Amino acid sequence: MSSFDFAIPTLGPCTTPSPIHLSREKGDFISDYVSDVQRVVYQVDVDLSQPPQAADLLEAAGPREMVYFDPAKVGAAIVTCGGLCPGLNDVIRSIVLCLWHRYGVRRLLGIRYGYRGFLKEFGFDAMAITLDHVRDIHKQGGTILGSSRGYGGRTQEIVDFLEQNSVNQLFVIGGDGTQRGALAICQEVMRRGSKIAIVGIPKTIDNDLSFVQRSFGFETSVSLAVDAVAGAHIEAAGAYNGIGLVKLMGRESGFIAAQTALACNDVNFVLIPEVPFVMQGENGFLNLLESRLKNRHHAVIVVSEGAGQHLLEQVPPGGDASGNKKLGDVGVFLKREISQYFKSKAVEIGVKYIDPSYIIRSAPANANDSVYCTRLGAHSVHAAMSGRTGLIVSLIHDRFVHVPIKLAVSERHVIDPEGSLWRDVIEATGQPGLMSG
Amino acid sequence: MSSFDFAIPTLGPCTTPSPIHLSREKGDFISDYVSDVQRVVYQVDVDLSQPPQAADLLEAAGPREMVYFDPAKVGAAIVTCGGLCPGLNDVIRSIVLCLWHRYGVRRLLGIRYGYRGFLKEFGFDAMAITLDHVRDIHKQGGTILGSSRGYGGRTQEIVDFLEQNSVNQLFVIGGDGTQRGALAICQEVMRRGSKIAIVGIPKTIDNDLSFVQRSFGFETSVSLAVDAVAGAHIEAAGAYNGIGLVKLMGRESGFIAAQTALACNDVNFVLIPEVPFVMQGENGFLNLLESRLKNRHHAVIVVSEGAGQHLLEQVPPGGDASGNKKLGDVGVFLKREISQYFKSKAVEIGVKYIDPSYIIRSAPANANDSVYCTRLGAHSVHAAMSGRTGLIVSLIHDRFVHVPIKLAVSERHVIDPEGSLWRDVIEATGQPGLMSG
Amino acid sequence: MSSFDFAIPTLGPCTTPSPIHLSREKGDFISDYVSDVQRVVYQVDVDLSQPPQAADLLEAAGPREMVYFDPAKVGAAIVTCGGLCPGLNDVIRSIVLCLWHRYGVRRLLGIRYGYRGFLKEFGFDAMAITLDHVRDIHKQGGTILGSSRGYGGRTQEIVDFLEQNSVNQLFVIGGDGTQRGALAICQEVMRRGSKIAIVGIPKTIDNDLSFVQRSFGFETSVSLAVDAVAGAHIEAAGAYNGIGLVKLMGRESGFIAAQTALACNDVNFVLIPEVPFVMQGENGFLNLLESRLKNRHHAVIVVSEGAGQHLLEQVPPGGDASGNKKLGDVGVFLKREISQYFKSKAVEIGVKYIDPSYIIRSAPANANDSVYCTRLGAHSVHAAMSGRTGLIVSLIHDRFVHVPIKLAVSERHVIDPEGSLWRDVIEATGQPGLMSG
Amino acid sequence: MSSFDFAIPTLGPCTTPSPIHLSREKGDFISDYVSDVQRVVYQVDVDLSQPPQAADLLEAAGPREMVYFDPAKVGAAIVTCGGLCPGLNDVIRSIVLCLWHRYGVRRLLGIRYGYRGFLKEFGFDAMAITLDHVRDIHKQGGTILGSSRGYGGRTQEIVDFLEQNSVNQLFVIGGDGTQRGALAICQEVMRRGSKIAIVGIPKTIDNDLSFVQRSFGFETSVSLAVDAVAGAHIEAAGAYNGIGLVKLMGRESGFIAAQTALACNDVNFVLIPEVPFVMQGENGFLNLLESRLKNRHHAVIVVSEGAGQHLLEQVPPGGDASGNKKLGDVGVFLKREISQYFKSKAVEIGVKYIDPSYIIRSAPANANDSVYCTRLGAHSVHAAMSGRTGLIVSLIHDRFVHVPIKLAVSERHVIDPEGSLWRDVIEATGQPGLMSG
Repeated sequence: MSSFDFAIPTLGPCTTPSPIHLSREKGDFISDYVSDVQRVVYQVDVDLSQPPQAADLLEAAGPREMVYFDPAKVGAAIVTCGGLCPGLNDVIRSIVLCLWHRYGVRRLLGIRYGYRGFLKEFGFDAMAITLDHVRDIHKQGGTILGSSRGYGGRTQEIVDFLEQNSVNQLFVIGGDGTQRGALAICQEVMRRGSKIAIVGIPKTIDNDLSFVQRSFGFETSVSLAVDAVAGAHIEAAGAYNGIGLVKLMGRESGFIAAQTALACNDVNFVLIPEVPFVMQGENGFLNLLESRLKNRHHAVIVVSEGAGQHLLEQVPPGGDASGNKKLGDVGVFLKREISQYFKSKAVEIGVKYIDPSYIIRSAPANANDSVYCTRLGAHSVHAAMSGRTGLIVSLIHDRFVHVPIKLAVSERHVIDPEGSLWRDVIEATGQPGLMSG
Repeated sequence: MSSFDFAIPTLGPCTTPSPIHLSREKGDFISDYVSDVQRVVYQVDVDLSQPPQAADLLEAAGPREMVYFDPAKVGAAIVTCGGLCPGLNDVIRSIVLCLWHRYGVRRLLGIRYGYRGFLKEFGFDAMAITLDHVRDIHKQGGTILGSSRGYGGRTQEIVDFLEQNSVNQLFVIGGDGTQRGALAICQEVMRRGSKIAIVGIPKTIDNDLSFVQRSFGFETSVSLAVDAVAGAHIEAAGAYNGIGLVKLMGRESGFIAAQTALACNDVNFVLIPEVPFVMQGENGFLNLLESRLKNRHHAVIVVSEGAGQHLLEQVPPGGDASGNKKLGDVGVFLKREISQYFKSKAVEIGVKYIDPSYIIRSAPANANDSVYCTRLGAHSVHAAMSGRTGLIVSLIHDRFVHVPIKLAVSERHVIDPEGSLWRDVIEATGQPGLMSG
Repeated sequence: MSSFDFAIPTLGPCTTPSPIHLSREKGDFISDYVSDVQRVVYQVDVDLSQPPQAADLLEAAGPREMVYFDPAKVGAAIVTCGGLCPGLNDVIRSIVLCLWHRYGVRRLLGIRYGYRGFLKEFGFDAMAITLDHVRDIHKQGGTILGSSRGYGGRTQEIVDFLEQNSVNQLFVIGGDGTQRGALAICQEVMRRGSKIAIVGIPKTIDNDLSFVQRSFGFETSVSLAVDAVAGAHIEAAGAYNGIGLVKLMGRESGFIAAQTALACNDVNFVLIPEVPFVMQGENGFLNLLESRLKNRHHAVIVVSEGAGQHLLEQVPPGGDASGNKKLGDVGVFLKREISQYFKSKAVEIGVKYIDPSYIIRSAPANANDSVYCTRLGAHSVHAAMSGRTGLIVSLIHDRFVHVPIKLAVSERHVIDPEGSLWRDVIEATGQPGLMSG
Repeated sequence: MSSFDFAIPTLGPCTTPSPIHLSREKGDFISDYVSDVQRVVYQVDVDLSQPPQAADLLEAAGPREMVYFDPAKVGAAIVTCGGLCPGLNDVIRSIVLCLWHRYGVRRLLGIRYGYRGFLKEFGFDAMAITLDHVRDIHKQGGTILGSSRGYGGRTQEIVDFLEQNSVNQLFVIGGDGTQRGALAICQEVMRRGSKIAIVGIPKTIDNDLSFVQRSFGFETSVSLAVDAVAGAHIEAAGAYNGIGLVKLMGRESGFIAAQTALACNDVNFVLIPEVPFVMQGENGFLNLLESRLKNRHHAVIVVSEGAGQHLLEQVPPGGDASGNKKLGDVGVFLKREISQYFKSKAVEIGVKYIDPSYIIRSAPANANDSVYCTRLGAHSVHAAMSGRTGLIVSLIHDRFVHVPIKLAVSERHVIDPEGSLWRDVIEATGQPGLMSG
């Protein structure tokens, strides 16, 4: 019935009754097991003028009545990769609590500093995790395991580690590149015929994953970005021709910048990777900024780190250790271009440039993100216990679902420049729909 | 194609080109108008073991290319009814800004203190609204218009007011009872053949509306409730056999209590209206509380205001001015019952009772709610301009949609005691699935 | 040279070189030891029209070059008594860290739940403290040791406990009643000729101690009270003739209420214990409130819990376990009186009553209070190590000093109704200087 | 009786009864006028081994019974100069409210963007201020008047402006350089025999003024700096050999850095202008940092912007428009030096550099600072009304006092490297007392 080509691999049939006592009956006020026939419709936009299409369906996540693994024989490992993001500790904590309290698993490994902790050259950097390690960690930002970029390609060594340490469930918390690594690990595990479940928890502060309704930490990030922009606005308004310039996270997707601008109401220009713009010309950015200053004597600009890359001087090719392409620094570029432009016109201005990225990334999750992370972690445990592998756990239409990693990494979630979100940003800022010179 | 019986009434065909300049073309980086054939699937849960069903569809909200009203002839009124809720000012502001800036409407009325402002006996309490009134109001809680309960049944006088003041768009921000009032107003308007659009913006801090993914202010409320519960936990742990008891909003739905408990991780018992419980008996609440104290010497209880009503002494019949049924005070009841129980057992305890409702209701919206309210307000304006009436604007699956008021008030959104949310609460608190004596 | 009659008792001469390496030289960029001849002027107000007076001097606190105790032989105990207050954990942590890292003391006892932990009937409830117990406790409110009221009069048993457990330094964190208990303990210790130093750290959220510039937690409390009052203001303004009524801590001193009103600018009436008021009459509170409503249709009232006690019905004599006299509930009284008054006049009003006490008391200390507590704890350790006893460590004119307990508990700090603080409150609220009927 | 050489100039005798109705009697529960014979002792540290000294006395601030100006003839101007600081709007608002409500002054001018608003070349940029302008401005950061650096030397033109616009009270909110400008204006006014009172309100986020107990906005700044450092700590701990480097405000005084480190407990190194340090050598900064990383694999560094200037490459001579000497960027310098050092040693590290200055400066004042600013503003009005001039209003030992500008700008307040504050920082960080190579 689904039009997706992807299926979720499993390690085998579920023959062990779950230690979690739920019910199959409706009306007894006892929570029900999730059944393997439950699905969630992915695509909900319908155009009545078009012929109806078969629905794309995603499998519902949650605790099954029968599980694949005997809990007494489970060894689980958790690894966090890439940049920090609010909520990492909530996810770690939730995985540990669910394994420990719900399934009775006691053998838990925390891999230190990302994939590198699997490697011999870094001393196989792992720690046994007990309840004491995770007690109040959701109240602090960051990850108690530490993180790093890269090393995802060391598939053989990672699978060796898993086998040698009798790890049969691996929880990988990380972004696009990290999940590609997890997919490779999963494939190698399958090739070897090992019975190790690989479950990904998608992490992307930029909110740029396609099969994830919103990424954890995103709301927290926006609320902190709002504070930074509020400061930029106060600084801008406090000086004659003051300009507040805030660079926010968003390598390929401008969601944080867009959502922040909508929340602030003080932003005059939002520049995002999805919408090209030019600096010069009557309808170019600099001229529009000048008009704004003439009218109001201050301006606030929010720019995604990935915006305007076509305007920057040649950035050396290659990428960072996570496989992300290198970006030129658009914040520094704009600050310089703006200063030069007004200097050449002998207009007195002052640019206050704010880059709040580290302050945002390292914050603890707010209440809503914390709940989300807690549930995400628990659902990833249920997925692993059921013997599923090569999947991420995700939220779609407020339901937790299973998505094959292959599908999840196949396309990036970006702002539709012609859709309602960007339209509302244009309305809120008053900037032209297109700065095209 | 839809299996819903309800259609959205309109005042007539749209023959005026919209003053908002968007595009119909894809790929030009210019936002597109929303077309009348765009729909959103409502029900996304599928059970593969059941035969497929026709999808329930909701109409997509957003700016149309052609509108019903000539902006120059629009007179709009806004009214806020019922209890306070974070985000009210954001919605008011957004309606005003969208009417003013996007459609060029200049005649705007704010009705003071709810429906009562329409009435002669209160001096027809209304104020002309300009941009100055709404400049920074989203940064403060409450409603600049004031609010009140009741008077929704004075349909004739309200429609008289609208006609006599040449109001042809009425925006009604309020809950269940308020929207029933709006429906009656809409029906009376239709009966008279008046061309007045009635658009509701659903407000319910309890998150108990069926056709609304989450109600505005809900997330803000949870994050503040978390602070109160954290305080209760600290108070409880700071005394020998300390008990922190927090009453939260939720007359018929325990969403705030459930979500707060998930976010806190410090809650041992959550009592909600949807799940009955008994006080006495081995598996009753008091005995379970005693066991908890014996093991840990402190406990935290979160109770929805509508929980346990069957246990309270007879509450006099009748309701408040909003038509809500009167509730007994379950917080005071629990405090007394707990104290008596342990006194009778000569166990030294101390109950710290916290009721943070007013502090929560009066808070400004957080960033995420603020964005939501901003967009909600704008979409309600687009709906009114298109001549639609008798509808609320809502968010379903992250899309803004039109829902007939009749449908929206037909059933209440409650926690499914056997679904995943309550299951995760049970897991997080460790309380038994059912306290059944 | 001092006009105080009180001297600080010591256990004997300091003959042990301090393990803390500081300097006696100026200009070497190395911190200096504090010398026993350093004093701080207490009374700094001078009236040129009066003859000059001898200055009251307080001894400077801080690390001495020579100490009384051999660190290897120190057994220290910490106890927290009375109600919660922001900063308790900061003080505990600081005492532990200073003893451990600076003096090398390893034998540390935490007494559980106040003085009662010393008693046999409660199982001598104490715990050994190590660095692990205090690592991040300053980030959470309350006290990790727990607290309780009373039992301060069980002097003999407490001193027995100290002797039997080889405790020779006792740190007592608590208010007026608690410090009287500490004084009795000190006197009994001296009577027995035991070499046990008793050092008090004064705790009073009400800020009502005379020889303390401001009590720790006070600023944090005010900032949270401001949030509650802001909520009350929003609630009041959101209803026709809405009245926000907030009860704040302050049994005998109205500092929290006064400071909060100054910070808010939204308060119309402040009622404190130091300034009597009447309810009835032209210049009485109720009539003034009515006038305010007539003009502005909303009002905000802040009341200290100890205000207006002369107006309340007879409260049964006796006190709570801390020896505090019982107070009638002025918040409930005002709510009832206000409601009845306007009902009798057929004026429609609505009172929103907020009691944020538990939320405030249980909060973690803000940055400024946290620094204060950290330094207070360290200075109390330096005092104990020097063999001083029967004293509290305090801040006067931003200097840390030693104050004999006897002096500290001899008079209470109250707002001078004719001084500058109350004058500024009167200015800020616009209320009459005296509501005298 | 005072040992100070400075007296506060006045414009003449006070012959007008104050419109503020207070009392001269004690015991009537009515606030008292402040008398001209009230003084506050400045120096409170006493060394018993030294001969007693005559006390330095400062005049008490507050409302006098007789005032110099007839309120009906007052024209007041307010100007804010230099960088932003939390609390500016609170001070502005308080000056306006006190003049308006307490003295009945109605002619109020706000000078736009600092001293430059007085100048013809910038269009004499001033605005009439009414109550509407200041209603809720204390809830937002920055200054509604705008600010700028420099132009303080344009004394003649400024006094011309004052005379031509019949301004006889000028309130100057600004730092050291600004107050020097105010002193020159005062002197020119006196030379011309004009009857214009010049009253300064000292603003310095660095807390570096000698006759001010603490500068307004300082506490707010520290609490926000704590958040930034907490983020740096999380980032540092989240990576292998992660280094969090935070640059904080403090050109010549390290108070913000020191206080922040005390509040955080997560800081390993604090570098301030008052204490020199070296980079190289066994006891140099880099080697100590390396040791820290070896032991704990992460480190947090807080540096005042004015620290280590002796280490930086030659900064071009000259100063900024405020007359502040130019500083090299010690944050960028440290980041580079640290990176190079560890690269040369082939040690893998990552430096996360955070500069939160704009976010801090632009924040609204917290509750405590807000109260302080409110009272500071009112006291400056009382000073001006009494005909005093050439003074700043300040807080000493929690009393508001008058300090001659000449005295206030004569020396800078710095951290005593051998005093108790720095000693407690050394204790809290564990860094060596002196990093001397």
